[in-house]
Amino acid sequence: MKCTVCKGPAVIDLRRHNANFCPEHFTKFCRDQVTKAIDDHDMIAPGQRVLVAVSGGKDSLALWDLLVALGYEAEGMTIGLGIGDYSEASTAAAVAYAESRGLPLRRIDLRADYGYDIPTAAAVTRRVPCSSCGMSKRHLIDAAALEGGFDVVATGHNLDDEAAVLLGNVLHWQTEYLGRQVPALPARDGFPRKVKPLVRLSERETAAYCVLRGIDYIVEECPMAAGNRHLRYKEALNAIEAGSPGTKHAFYFEFLAKAAGHFQPEAAAAQDGLTACARCGAPTTGEVCAFCRLVERVEGADPVPVELVRSGRRR
Amino acid sequence: MKCTVCKGPAVIDLRRHNANFCPEHFTKFCRDQVTKAIDDHDMIAPGQRVLVAVSGGKDSLALWDLLVALGYEAEGMTIGLGIGDYSEASTAAAVAYAESRGLPLRRIDLRADYGYDIPTAAAVTRRVPCSSCGMSKRHLIDAAALEGGFDVVATGHNLDDEAAVLLGNVLHWQTEYLGRQVPALPARDGFPRKVKPLVRLSERETAAYCVLRGIDYIVEECPMAAGNRHLRYKEALNAIEAGSPGTKHAFYFEFLAKAAGHFQPEAAAAQDGLTACARCGAPTTGEVCAFCRLVERVEGADPVPVELVRSGRRR
Repeated sequence: MKCTVCKGPAVIDLRRHNANFCPEHFTKFCRDQVTKAIDDHDMIAPGQRVLVAVSGGKDSLALWDLLVALGYEAEGMTIGLGIGDYSEASTAAAVAYAESRGLPLRRIDLRADYGYDIPTAAAVTRRVPCSSCGMSKRHLIDAAALEGGFDVVATGHNLDDEAAVLLGNVLHWQTEYLGRQVPALPARDGFPRKVKPLVRLSERETAAYCVLRGIDYIVEECPMAAGNRHLRYKEALNAIEAGSPGTKHAFYFEFLAKAAGHFQPEAAAAQDGLTACARCGAPTTGEVCAFCRLVERVEGADPVPVELVRSGRRR
Repeated sequence: MKCTVCKGPAVIDLRRHNANFCPEHFTKFCRDQVTKAIDDHDMIAPGQRVLVAVSGGKDSLALWDLLVALGYEAEGMTIGLGIGDYSEASTAAAVAYAESRGLPLRRIDLRADYGYDIPTAAAVTRRVPCSSCGMSKRHLIDAAALEGGFDVVATGHNLDDEAAVLLGNVLHWQTEYLGRQVPALPARDGFPRKVKPLVRLSERETAAYCVLRGIDYIVEECPMAAGNRHLRYKEALNAIEAGSPGTKHAFYFEFLAKAAGHFQPEAAAAQDGLTACARCGAPTTGEVCAFCRLVERVEGADPVPVELVRSGRRR
């Protein structure tokens, strides 16, 4: 297998691009794809300050590394979720990467700073853990970006993620979410600008990028996500992609080109009537935002070990 | 397992309805679902003449049987496609059902009446066989309906079919097709009204209906469709449905309720500029319609045996 660019020994084949790459040209390919995503969707202007949401997994570390390599001023932020060993190893990977590269990393710990963790939140709310986890992360990163005066929040959602979320959104025709599922979401009252520079790279590619760049990421998947819908949607799309390489790319980018605009009215309508949370000032449809309500609800609850919560159901 | 209605012994469980049925109440369930589909989408008015597209498979025979049971004047039409033993058995099943019920069945044979068959068309056009097959069937049924003065054409597309077609249409965001993927398509210049009364029933349900009603249908799937995209989309949806019963129903009916309307402009635009075929008068975008062009192209071609054509590729 030879590199499509230099004919040297290739280390990865990309079926949907009908190309193979050596380490050097694969790294260039990744940078070019991120550059194209940023340009095509006006994600980040030169000189803007970027807050990168860092989990310690392949995607967020590849994102941070790529943004720095492309010359952006990118600061990291990581949140200790309290999901047992998994969270400890995730935070350790984020910290190790930041220290090795001399990059600034903001840290929050849900238990130390807000008195709860995700397993306990899942048990108390009796919802899937991914629900309180996603909400907590979004709230805290948005708040940190606004407080820190960042121009934009960057997250490591890759093409597989976006295609799976899109599949979930169309399977239930969640028109509000469809109107909002764009790779660059403008800032609006109380929300920072949010971008997804990895939308042109698959998760296999971000993993390969980390390996080739010597980035030590946490390989383990979140133990609480096992068996969730998102993973089932990924599997379904993987089966289709295997037979027709490029289907995921077409699914997501044709959506952006031909369909996302149709759902703007629903997305806009869902933002009508947002007010500031009476506690923290974040945008909310009620009097108190979902994050402050969660913090209040889990206050004083006995910590629940991760082993007792799986896919949203206590054993 | 007990019937949800009468508590007698049940023969089928329907997970997405959280119900079990005995033969009597399952038959009633099927009739009720077809009645609801016809009512909800204004498919057929009382007294209208219906032309049923009959392949000899479970769906089309169940449809015909259900329409007759519900009191509609439903005539059948079957097309000999020339796909070897499969087509012979299909036609035989359609004829046997019609004779046993004393129902009128119109018959066309592609080879005898138009000088070609599907394997030969696939080989000559070098396209997947499903392409010339679908086009030929649509053309001939539309023409027969208009010539015969029928008010509406009914086809046996079930929920699994519609969900798989919808998945294919969203995976490639074929907005024109999305705007047209409705269970009742109005008549327009040169096209008859077309309805799909089985959209609320799954293929497992139409098969069970045939078994319980003593309808001898062809169980074999078309040998030329094996491995095609539609079947892969069905498999992907089956995997999701197994984990979340009701997903297919929500996917299709939420689409109709919340999204199909968004794509009407694209569907309407695609119909602009249709003219009458110079040969047969059918609506077409060119001078001669796709059917007449196919007939001309395959004229005189040596018949290609079905064994030499698979999934659109000659071995």
